[in-house]
Amino acid sequence: MTLGFTVWLTGLSGSGKSTIAGHLAMSIRAAGLPVVILDGDEIRSGLSSDLGFSRPDRDTQVRRVGWICDLLTRNGVVAIAALVSPYEASRAEVRAAIGRCLMVFVEAPIATLKARDTKGLYREADAGRLTDLTGLGDPYEPPAEPDVHCVSDGRETAESCADRILERLRAVGYLADTSVDDERPSSGAGYSPDEEGEVRARLTELGYIE
Amino acid sequence: MTLGFTVWLTGLSGSGKSTIAGHLAMSIRAAGLPVVILDGDEIRSGLSSDLGFSRPDRDTQVRRVGWICDLLTRNGVVAIAALVSPYEASRAEVRAAIGRCLMVFVEAPIATLKARDTKGLYREADAGRLTDLTGLGDPYEPPAEPDVHCVSDGRETAESCADRILERLRAVGYLADTSVDDERPSSGAGYSPDEEGEVRARLTELGYIE
Repeated sequence: MTLGFTVWLTGLSGSGKSTIAGHLAMSIRAAGLPVVILDGDEIRSGLSSDLGFSRPDRDTQVRRVGWICDLLTRNGVVAIAALVSPYEASRAEVRAAIGRCLMVFVEAPIATLKARDTKGLYREADAGRLTDLTGLGDPYEPPAEPDVHCVSDGRETAESCADRILERLRAVGYLADTSVDDERPSSGAGYSPDEEGEVRARLTELGYIE
Repeated sequence: MTLGFTVWLTGLSGSGKSTIAGHLAMSIRAAGLPVVILDGDEIRSGLSSDLGFSRPDRDTQVRRVGWICDLLTRNGVVAIAALVSPYEASRAEVRAAIGRCLMVFVEAPIATLKARDTKGLYREADAGRLTDLTGLGDPYEPPAEPDVHCVSDGRETAESCADRILERLRAVGYLADTSVDDERPSSGAGYSPDEEGEVRARLTELGYIE
């Protein structure tokens, strides 16, 4: 049996992880592979309804999802986790346990998230009614060495981010070179040199690279 | 995307659930479908390492596995749960939630389990060191209306039980009629009328049917 793989999307609430996961799943399914999305919100309302937002509970959430991703990966299924997963240590732990796992950092400036605020969480936090929102009351540790780094501030679309993840999956051999999107124009995937420069400038501004 | 389905194997420890699950998974994979086995022992050492063997904990274990089976089924993956799952209410709950779910009762007489005792649990229970073993210290409620009923007392092999489950999966339309084992001799699948009579006699003896 062919092994599967895991794509782990980490980032603040509202950064666009689920949207990117949806695009990614569609392309990988089109290539004929079985895909399961593990979405943080959905998991918290079901499997992890016993967990809150303390650090131990957040780490338990990450470990549970990591355990499922590992099981799926070993059984030839592609797992896509879309999870805030704010702590580097537990993320690194599940990534090592899974092995065939790409870590994707979906980064978004707090100002963008506050402006977007689709779930109303940032408004609640600003009003003092939500004290443990990651990025405001609770810490977020950006991944030290993400395999793919998306910046969700309006300059890169979710599709483009998903395309870059697909490229990376092909580059590391988890996806066959010709299996996905082969006939799409190459301009759809990855950054143009201009975009690349813009994104690098933005990342520098945000202090993520030097 | 095609929906998957779930096969839920319930029965006492050592009754042969995992062996049947293995045979079943092999046949379903051979038909080209993605399959994930959710094995009770494996889950307790990972995802559910926080749970013990009280009734609430056993029900939580069933609900967690049910949640994963539902997620897989909705995403086109076949889930096979091999879990003691002793209580009718929580089994019925997850079966209803999943929808596309066959309930398989893997029944084995305590005398057979004690003679087999691959994990040494029945010896431990007899020595008084294990007080909550299902079937001895803890109750087991047989499913009221299982879709398939296997009796694991040496008269039916695990392969034959798996074949009867495959037949049932085809009968309810979860598996395509021609997708699995089509060229195998039909004598390998299901009971002969003689065997059927024997098994019915045995079930009556055990008090499971009248």
